[in-house]
Amino acid sequence: MKKFVNDPKQFVPEMLEGLALANPDTLTYDPAFNLILRADAPVKDKVAILQGSGSGHEPAHVMAVGRGMLDGACPGDVFAAPPMDYVLEATRRLATDAGVIYIVNNYTGDRMAFEMAQELAEAEGIRVRTVLVNDDVAVKDSTYTVGRRGVAGNFFVIKAMGAAAEKGADIDEVVRVGEHVNSVTRSMGLALTSCTPPAKGSPIFDLGEDEAELGVGIHGEPGRERVRVPSAGAIVRELGEAIISDLPFQKGDRVAVMINGLGGTPVSELYLLYGLVHKDLQARGITVERNYIGEYCTSLDMVGASLTLVRLDDEISELLAAPAEVPIRVF
Amino acid sequence: MKKFVNDPKQFVPEMLEGLALANPDTLTYDPAFNLILRADAPVKDKVAILQGSGSGHEPAHVMAVGRGMLDGACPGDVFAAPPMDYVLEATRRLATDAGVIYIVNNYTGDRMAFEMAQELAEAEGIRVRTVLVNDDVAVKDSTYTVGRRGVAGNFFVIKAMGAAAEKGADIDEVVRVGEHVNSVTRSMGLALTSCTPPAKGSPIFDLGEDEAELGVGIHGEPGRERVRVPSAGAIVRELGEAIISDLPFQKGDRVAVMINGLGGTPVSELYLLYGLVHKDLQARGITVERNYIGEYCTSLDMVGASLTLVRLDDEISELLAAPAEVPIRVF
Repeated sequence: MKKFVNDPKQFVPEMLEGLALANPDTLTYDPAFNLILRADAPVKDKVAILQGSGSGHEPAHVMAVGRGMLDGACPGDVFAAPPMDYVLEATRRLATDAGVIYIVNNYTGDRMAFEMAQELAEAEGIRVRTVLVNDDVAVKDSTYTVGRRGVAGNFFVIKAMGAAAEKGADIDEVVRVGEHVNSVTRSMGLALTSCTPPAKGSPIFDLGEDEAELGVGIHGEPGRERVRVPSAGAIVRELGEAIISDLPFQKGDRVAVMINGLGGTPVSELYLLYGLVHKDLQARGITVERNYIGEYCTSLDMVGASLTLVRLDDEISELLAAPAEVPIRVF
Repeated sequence: MKKFVNDPKQFVPEMLEGLALANPDTLTYDPAFNLILRADAPVKDKVAILQGSGSGHEPAHVMAVGRGMLDGACPGDVFAAPPMDYVLEATRRLATDAGVIYIVNNYTGDRMAFEMAQELAEAEGIRVRTVLVNDDVAVKDSTYTVGRRGVAGNFFVIKAMGAAAEKGADIDEVVRVGEHVNSVTRSMGLALTSCTPPAKGSPIFDLGEDEAELGVGIHGEPGRERVRVPSAGAIVRELGEAIISDLPFQKGDRVAVMINGLGGTPVSELYLLYGLVHKDLQARGITVERNYIGEYCTSLDMVGASLTLVRLDDEISELLAAPAEVPIRVF
């Protein structure tokens, strides 16, 4: 296995410890529950925002914790939902009178953990709401999902909700913002290789030397089609058409574009893809107002990329431009 | 070949076009000479800073162009020095009365192109100085180098010189800053895989399933030793010891630490490495004041990482903390 790792079972805690050591002023780490929290949490009178899911998608979501984004993240092990009691403990640590919102990407395991934690937290008198993210247009249901999967578009939901909460919006308003952003966000990805979880030590699926998985999930779930490796231009056309026709995005729309690397793709190739997407959208009369190029939601070491489009209005534009203080690029 | 690419010969221009389209307010791209320049260049009365080298190391150096960093970059093709006339043209575009400084990573091809361009530019009346970067402690001479190679530590030289120039320092002073930072910066890397240039379509060297190259160069040049894949802890000890003993870094020193991904390494693993480095330095009585974790100088899709340490003093600390406006993380 070609990884920078010690004991594979300690992969997640060692990564989280590194994250906390790198951000001593802004983050705290509680190894007992795998929690990464804002150092100043709970933030009085502010709605708190929590996300948790399997690890292996970094920088999502642990590196999106900080002012103007998440108040905390409770990651599970690699590609595994967080234990319910970790979610509950995170909820207690973040809870304020303003309440706590869970952002849950739509996977069955994550939903179960967060639903159970919500029930128990509410029984303790904590006000909790949940926003589901399901931006992946590739397939209707999937290996671990009923309904659409939540993928990199999740970043925009966090960013907008985080900005709204920071400005003092109440829990209903922050939930509304999150659901609104999710409703105008669409993503789809393509894998050129599989990925290798540290504890498994071998790829989770097989992909031939000349094959690509169109519409791949971020845990290696099958997409729409196994294809011969397409040119970058053909990939942009396939992903773009699937996403644009789905909302649909239309001439005159203003959008944010994300080219997200899945973990093993050089940034040079992501910029190459961005140029093609930008010109394709321009030709359709769609205006790119904001762009995000890099890694936002990965699948371990997978060579692949995803495209996300968000239809902007003045409200979303302003929230996306708001300041934030996290280890990743947010502007 | 598993890459996001159209015609491999157009890899660099398509990537540069994407970069320019993503940064319309801050960057301009001239396809005739492969140039990425600050949109407001030449900046009156300011010393201009130019770097060029082979492509394939992104975000170095084209994504380090902007206010407070480089005024321009003149990349060559993948792993190939820029043509001398591209360097000369870039020099003309950036030239002000305050002069132009070349930052040249120590590779024979790059040095030749920049030395010839400097002669011709000076003949045209442009004031030019050169700062060499040679931070890689792995080997004395190398495949394309007499003397030490310049690798990821280059980022710190750019950042400090860019900040000094932005504050109005004159050409001698900005050169002094660059040479000072280079003199206290040391790096070394390790590769777990080779890398594949788009136009070649196959790996540039062979590395067995259980092998790693300790001290690898960013063009896949041999390092110190071919080893069995070490644990993350062993890697940190090897790289740390080589770097620390070289300057040497000593108890009581304050440092900036960079964990640089070589292109195909997940950010989770880089943070895991950072945690180990941080604790190792702490145990040695060396204080980490600034950290940089991510991709700064890559080798296409190579799975690997490098460690860079910079010995800080108040001057360097202040320059590293100065504002900058480029597509990569600089703080």
